[in-house]
Amino acid sequence: MNEPVLARLQQLMTLREEVETLGPGGPWIPAADWTDEDTHLALHLDVPGVSAESLELLEDGSTVSVTGERPALPRLIGGDRPTGTFRRSFTFPQDVLPQTGEAQLANGVLTVRFQKKHPTIDVQVESRPDHPTEPGR
Amino acid sequence: MNEPVLARLQQLMTLREEVETLGPGGPWIPAADWTDEDTHLALHLDVPGVSAESLELLEDGSTVSVTGERPALPRLIGGDRPTGTFRRSFTFPQDVLPQTGEAQLANGVLTVRFQKKHPTIDVQVESRPDHPTEPGR
Repeated sequence: MNEPVLARLQQLMTLREEVETLGPGGPWIPAADWTDEDTHLALHLDVPGVSAESLELLEDGSTVSVTGERPALPRLIGGDRPTGTFRRSFTFPQDVLPQTGEAQLANGVLTVRFQKKHPTIDVQVESRPDHPTEPGR
Repeated sequence: MNEPVLARLQQLMTLREEVETLGPGGPWIPAADWTDEDTHLALHLDVPGVSAESLELLEDGSTVSVTGERPALPRLIGGDRPTGTFRRSFTFPQDVLPQTGEAQLANGVLTVRFQKKHPTIDVQVESRPDHPTEPGR
């Protein structure tokens, strides 16, 4: 086999590992988003059917981890909903102030808001008066 | 390249397609389970953050389809939560009576119950009396 074929095979082997992680039976990795809310950063995590009691958040400097679980449904015929425990860690996309996280669970989405260390400052476009007065001069 | 290598490449190419389907940017396929509830069959669909108003169910003989959508979050920094519309179709695992579906949305999980055409009959283990009377003989 020549070099390009070997490289291609290697690339595809890596992809196979990704499939195995993503497919049914792999670990449960809830989907998540980060949004910017000026003074805060918000983490949104898809946790349908997970009870608030089972959710735990751990903040550790530059990262936040979320764990939780949901039991398997009784008398399951079949399907692909992941069950059991999950754990996902996130690096804060910007610096946050320690211990400011506030969590809320609604419609199967966990939202955690953290206060930014350096809040986004909106640039105000000031309308200049035609004849500005210059006080103090 | 010899035959086994070609076969392996083909297999890996298929897996690559699966990765592309599963990975971010692919279509949104909400996870689902079927459970048996004696007289009913229940479909459970993970739809976190999806409003009840956007959900639509269509029953068509042996299949049921669910569509819905959720908008992208404003001021998104990054993440992997799927957004936009989804559509997923299911074949009933057992025959159901038409137009008996009843849907309920709670904690980001849509549950739809259908009345079975042939309800499961529990086998009762009857305790035999020691000296059975045989009426009519």
